[in-house]
Amino acid sequence: MGTRRGTNLPRMGDFNQSVILETIRRSGEGLSRTELVAATGLSAQTVTNITRRLLDDGLIAEAGRTINGPGKPRITLRLISQSRFSVGVHLDPSLITLVLLDLAGDVVGRLAIHTPDSDPHRVVDSMARAIEELISSSGVDRARIAGVGIAAPGPLDAVKGTVIDPPKLQGWHRVPLRAVLAEAVELPVVLEKDTTAAAVGELWRGRGSAHDSFVFVYLGTGVGAALARGGDVERGSSRNLGEVGHIMVDPDGPSCACGARGCVEVVCTPQAIVEDAERAGVLRGDPPVSDEGIDARLARLCELAAAGDAPAAEVLRQAAIRLSVMIAALTNMLDVDRVVLGGPFWDRLAAVYLRELPEQLDRRSVTRSVHTLEVAGTVVGEDVAAVGAACVVLDAVLTPRASDLLLGG
Amino acid sequence: MGTRRGTNLPRMGDFNQSVILETIRRSGEGLSRTELVAATGLSAQTVTNITRRLLDDGLIAEAGRTINGPGKPRITLRLISQSRFSVGVHLDPSLITLVLLDLAGDVVGRLAIHTPDSDPHRVVDSMARAIEELISSSGVDRARIAGVGIAAPGPLDAVKGTVIDPPKLQGWHRVPLRAVLAEAVELPVVLEKDTTAAAVGELWRGRGSAHDSFVFVYLGTGVGAALARGGDVERGSSRNLGEVGHIMVDPDGPSCACGARGCVEVVCTPQAIVEDAERAGVLRGDPPVSDEGIDARLARLCELAAAGDAPAAEVLRQAAIRLSVMIAALTNMLDVDRVVLGGPFWDRLAAVYLRELPEQLDRRSVTRSVHTLEVAGTVVGEDVAAVGAACVVLDAVLTPRASDLLLGG
Repeated sequence: MGTRRGTNLPRMGDFNQSVILETIRRSGEGLSRTELVAATGLSAQTVTNITRRLLDDGLIAEAGRTINGPGKPRITLRLISQSRFSVGVHLDPSLITLVLLDLAGDVVGRLAIHTPDSDPHRVVDSMARAIEELISSSGVDRARIAGVGIAAPGPLDAVKGTVIDPPKLQGWHRVPLRAVLAEAVELPVVLEKDTTAAAVGELWRGRGSAHDSFVFVYLGTGVGAALARGGDVERGSSRNLGEVGHIMVDPDGPSCACGARGCVEVVCTPQAIVEDAERAGVLRGDPPVSDEGIDARLARLCELAAAGDAPAAEVLRQAAIRLSVMIAALTNMLDVDRVVLGGPFWDRLAAVYLRELPEQLDRRSVTRSVHTLEVAGTVVGEDVAAVGAACVVLDAVLTPRASDLLLGG
Repeated sequence: MGTRRGTNLPRMGDFNQSVILETIRRSGEGLSRTELVAATGLSAQTVTNITRRLLDDGLIAEAGRTINGPGKPRITLRLISQSRFSVGVHLDPSLITLVLLDLAGDVVGRLAIHTPDSDPHRVVDSMARAIEELISSSGVDRARIAGVGIAAPGPLDAVKGTVIDPPKLQGWHRVPLRAVLAEAVELPVVLEKDTTAAAVGELWRGRGSAHDSFVFVYLGTGVGAALARGGDVERGSSRNLGEVGHIMVDPDGPSCACGARGCVEVVCTPQAIVEDAERAGVLRGDPPVSDEGIDARLARLCELAAAGDAPAAEVLRQAAIRLSVMIAALTNMLDVDRVVLGGPFWDRLAAVYLRELPEQLDRRSVTRSVHTLEVAGTVVGEDVAAVGAACVVLDAVLTPRASDLLLGG
C-alpha cells in the first residue's frame, strides 16, 4: 500500500472510453448517447466527447435514428466490428487451433492443424504458416489485425515470454515462443496460459457482470483452473495462477511424481479416466485399445456411457466425483458465484459431469446456507482457449483495466 | 462486464484523499507537499487542495519546516494519530481479545477476557462491557471512535451480519452479532471473518506494496486462510473467502465428517496435533493430559520440542509437512509472492514451522523456476485478528478502495 498511487485525468479518460466501447459492444443492437449515459453513469458531456473520438477512430458508427416521442431523434451508435481483428492460437500437445476474431468477438475465421511433433522450430513454423493462411483466406486487411494471442500450457515465464516445460511436448524447455513467433509473423504477440485465456474468452462472450465471479475449470491434456472476479481474470504474481495438478482428491489413488497420492494430475486427466475404464474392463474389443489415442478412447467411453452402458457411466461418475473434490477446494477457498467448465475434453464429459457436479459441489460447499453455486459449461465452445487468446489481444488494445487507472500501476 | 460503470470526479477526489492520507500515515515522520507529489504522482494543485481539507478536518497537522537550500522552506505534514480511533474485537471460542487503535494503526489499549461460555447473550454482554471498559480506561473521547470491528469465525452471513455456525461455540446459530452489539454499544459495528481481518491487519502494518500478494494462513481453533492482492484483501462473493478446512492433505489421515480422509480440519488443527502427540506417547506425566486444555497441551509439546525432545519435534515437523500440502495447494493455484502465518496458535508453532515450511513449499511449487515464495510470520503478533478488525473500521472510514472509483461499484 505504501506505493499506491493517485489517479489523474488522462487515464481516467482512457478507462471511460473503454467502458463506453464495451457497453456498445455488449449491447449488440447499439445504443443512443442517452442510453449510454444511463448505462455507464457518465455525464452527457463525457459521453458526447468520447463517442466523437470513437467515431473519428472508426471504431463505432452512427447506425440510424429512432424517433421516440417529441424532441430530437436518438441516434444509435453501433460497433464497427470489422474495424479491428485479432488472431488467437491455442497450442495443445496434439492440435493447434487458430481463430480470427473481429472487434465484436465473433469468430470470422478458423483453422486447426495437427501439432507436427515436439520440435519447437517445426511447431513455430507451422503456427506461423497457419496464421498467414488464416489471415489471407479471410480477406481481412492485415493492417487491421491488432496482434496474435497464444494460449499455451503453463507454467510460463511471462517476463521473457517463454513456455517453460509444457507437458507432452518433449524437447520444449524455456522456448521463447512470444519472441520467435512475433519475428515470424511480424505482428505483436502476447502469450497467456491456456486456462487464463479460456476464462478471458468466457468473460468476453458470457453474460457475467462486473460483480460476478467464477472459477474456470479447464479440461485439457492436464487439468487447470482460472479465476475471474469483478469483470477481470486474475493472473497472479507471475501470470501462472491456476496450477491445480497437485491438489489431492483421492486418498486411495495412485502415487504421483510429486510424492503424494491421488493428485488431480494422476486421477482427473483424460488419460487417468481412460486407464480407469481399462482397469474396469469397460474399454475392450476392436480396434485394440493400445492402437487408439487417449482422445479416441475417451470418446468411446463417453459413447458407451451415453448408450446406457452402466460400467462406463460409473467410471465417468467416479471421475466427476474426484473432480468435484478439487473444485470444492477451490470454491470454498475462493467463495465464487459460479463454476464454468471448458477445454478440449469438456464436450465429451459434459453430459455426465453436469449431472453429477452440482449435487457434489452443493454437498461440499461450506457456504451453501449463504449462497448457491451455479455450475455450467462454457458458452464459448471447444475453441474457448483460442478465442480467449484472441480476446486477450482485443483487451490489450481496447480495454484499459480498472487497475490501470492508478498512476504508475 | 456488461454492467461495468464509468468513473466520475467526486469519487476520484475521495480516492486521492485516501491515497494522500495513507502515504502520510506510512511515512511515519511525515512528508512535505513536494514529497507527496513525488510519492503519489498527483499534481501539486491536487496535493495542495487535499492537504488543506485534511488540515481542516484535523486529520493531519503541519509539523515543522525544513530549510533545504534556497527557496521556500518545506512544511512537513504529519498524521494526527489521536484524531480518530477504532475498536477491534476478536471473538475466539476461548478468549475475547479487544484492542483500541489510533489512526496510525498503533495499539493504544488492550483487554482480553475469557469467553464466558457458549451462550450468545452472555458473550455479547461481556463483549459490550469490555468495549466500554477499554474505551473509558483509555481516556479517549468517545466521539473520536469511528466504530467497532469484530473478527469472528466463519462462515458468516455478511448481508445480515450474522455468525452462522462457529466451531466450538455450541448454541450459536445465525446469531445477528453485528446488530446486537451495535445496539449494545451505540457505535457502528462491522463484522468480518477472523482470517480476513488478520490479513487486513497485516496489510496495514506490513511492508507490503500495492503490487504485492500474499496468502495469510490463520492458525486458530480451526485453520483458515485469506488472500491479499494489489493492496486489498479479497473477500469473495459472500465475504467468506478462505474456507480451507476440507482440503485433503494426508491420504493416511483419519476420517472427516465431510466423508473424506485427512482433511485440514482433522489433521492440521491444534487439537489434531496434540492428539498425534498423545498417540506417539510424547505427552504424558503430570499434570494428566486429560486435565489440560488444548492450548496448554500444545504449549507443553512445543516446549518439549524446543528443549530437544526428538519425538516431540517430529510430531511438529509432520504437522508442518501436512500444513505445507494445504499451503502449496493455495499458492500453486493463486500464484502469490508470499505466505504469511499468524493467529492465536502461531507463536508456539513458529519455530518449527518456519524451519520446515520454506523447503517444503519450494519443493511443491510449480513455479519455482519463475519466482520464489517468501514465508514469514505476521508482523502484527498474536493480536493480529483483533488489530485487523480495528483496521477494517479505519479502512471503511478513511480508505475508499480502488474499486469504489467505479460508479455504482
